[in-house]
Amino acid sequence: MSACESRTIWWDGGLWMIDQTRLPGELLSIRIRSVRELIEAIKSLRVRGAPALGAAGAYGIALAAQLSRTGNTYEMRQELEQAKEMIKGSRPTAVNLSWGVDRALRAVEDQETVEEIQEAALREAEAVAEEDVRTNKALGKAGSRLLEDGDCVLTHCNAGRLACVGWGTALGVIRSAVEAGKDISVYACETRPLNQGSRLTAWELAQDGIPVTLICESMSGSLMRKGRIDKAIVGADRITRDVVFNKIGTYNHAVLARYHKVPFYVAAPLSTFDLAHAEEDIVVEERDPDEICLQGEVRLAPEGIEVYNPAFDATPLDLVSALITEKGVFRPPLMPPI
Amino acid sequence: MSACESRTIWWDGGLWMIDQTRLPGELLSIRIRSVRELIEAIKSLRVRGAPALGAAGAYGIALAAQLSRTGNTYEMRQELEQAKEMIKGSRPTAVNLSWGVDRALRAVEDQETVEEIQEAALREAEAVAEEDVRTNKALGKAGSRLLEDGDCVLTHCNAGRLACVGWGTALGVIRSAVEAGKDISVYACETRPLNQGSRLTAWELAQDGIPVTLICESMSGSLMRKGRIDKAIVGADRITRDVVFNKIGTYNHAVLARYHKVPFYVAAPLSTFDLAHAEEDIVVEERDPDEICLQGEVRLAPEGIEVYNPAFDATPLDLVSALITEKGVFRPPLMPPI
Repeated sequence: MSACESRTIWWDGGLWMIDQTRLPGELLSIRIRSVRELIEAIKSLRVRGAPALGAAGAYGIALAAQLSRTGNTYEMRQELEQAKEMIKGSRPTAVNLSWGVDRALRAVEDQETVEEIQEAALREAEAVAEEDVRTNKALGKAGSRLLEDGDCVLTHCNAGRLACVGWGTALGVIRSAVEAGKDISVYACETRPLNQGSRLTAWELAQDGIPVTLICESMSGSLMRKGRIDKAIVGADRITRDVVFNKIGTYNHAVLARYHKVPFYVAAPLSTFDLAHAEEDIVVEERDPDEICLQGEVRLAPEGIEVYNPAFDATPLDLVSALITEKGVFRPPLMPPI
Repeated sequence: MSACESRTIWWDGGLWMIDQTRLPGELLSIRIRSVRELIEAIKSLRVRGAPALGAAGAYGIALAAQLSRTGNTYEMRQELEQAKEMIKGSRPTAVNLSWGVDRALRAVEDQETVEEIQEAALREAEAVAEEDVRTNKALGKAGSRLLEDGDCVLTHCNAGRLACVGWGTALGVIRSAVEAGKDISVYACETRPLNQGSRLTAWELAQDGIPVTLICESMSGSLMRKGRIDKAIVGADRITRDVVFNKIGTYNHAVLARYHKVPFYVAAPLSTFDLAHAEEDIVVEERDPDEICLQGEVRLAPEGIEVYNPAFDATPLDLVSALITEKGVFRPPLMPPI
């Protein structure tokens, strides 16, 4: 299997990624030729998902170093500092992006030539990507023990291999349970407004032969009421000491799960944890109204209508049955050692 | 104001309706020339909404009578009986459709000539339409007392004038409160998969100058958690003795409202009540998977994916703070006298 087939973002003589906005119609790999192109790709969600953004951040610094035309380490460090600010600002709520950028920058701190900086940045980005796959497999294995043979699992948005470098977090747990011989079926919420559930999660699971039924997120409660959902698993964009920030709609499912006594799990690597901060410290990005008002050429709402379109919501940890990490499963208020 | 501007379905030398599938892009009135065309219009939601379907049912019988070429009352009654079965079967969960059909048929029972049958059916259909507007105004007035000046109200789907012959049920309550001088703003849920909220509710309210903000239904919980929603009001497709059947997604909002102590109101005329039946007696129609998988030409999900697409969900009455009817406000387990 080539890198393209197994990974969402990779380096092959340059930076490559799957353009996730083209799925499920087309599996297209694109070459990213500048930091500006990377930022456009992040903002328009060609690459998205917390762990994948971690790798994108680190590869972004490696790319900036590779593209630099200076022979001077002082100037190169200035260029990398600029790249850092630009990349971090492209999706401010996603903590992994910032984490990936910082990791690559720390790796170049002690390098003494421009070539050494270039090599160290790329080596670190590759390490971030490798670790992501290893982390997700460890996380998946830990979480798979929470799933029983025959379980029907609800998930929201895409916390699959497309959200990561490979394997996935929420879907990684499901994949690990299936790999362990359990019979698991999935309800995938389409996840408005950008349909990452219908476009990406449904596609990923169907590709793997895992039984998946697509629903609108508005159907989760009535399915729980009918007893047709055994567990819910989602990913996370940032876990502060009090809440889980994840795709808008996660909080609705968490409250519904609590009401119906369905376990509600959050699967996320330690890089997603930000225990130095609380909910009130974090600004949730609001996205373009046209994401809700237009679908291709089809106008779904009157022109000029007022729209509220936050990317994420916050789920208090007391609604979370367990946090699934590469260091094991933690039941709040217990938290992993960071 | 012409009938076309003020009503959703009307008779003017023949049966006319607003084609709601064309909104918000286009306000198009279409002539319905046969029972078959009416059924197509009902199935494809050119006309939808419980009260509007009541009028559509009665007008359908009037139309069948007008189009009849027989001079024989026995044959005409047979034709009307056929029309009854066809119309009722077009949307089985909507009780008002059946109710409207039956009202028109009862009105022709004692008529002795084909002309008398034709006149009586049309007279009764017109009466159903007139009553619907009067009923909604009475219901709106009763419900408006539950809204306070400055309230921000969540609504789902379209229970507005487009769902009725005029004025509206859930939106009728809001209109009546605004008419009474109260300052009311609305969060309208887009209502997947057919976007009646973004296409119809947002359009209706914007037309009336009532402040409206469009959201995805997945945002209702986090808005309630932030204290930005004071009340929720929805319509109903059928109210049995134990549950409210309404657009899929209603149940999620009801549970979220209970969790956040937000009053949850259902506004519906008595014709929506079906106290002879319970939830278990009612079959909820499942609709075409492509409603979720395609938006115009845009494919949102992989081809051939499994989809669950029920039109309605059931909200137990104990989650409903009050039922708003033309006979006043009833707090379950109290029910209106039917």
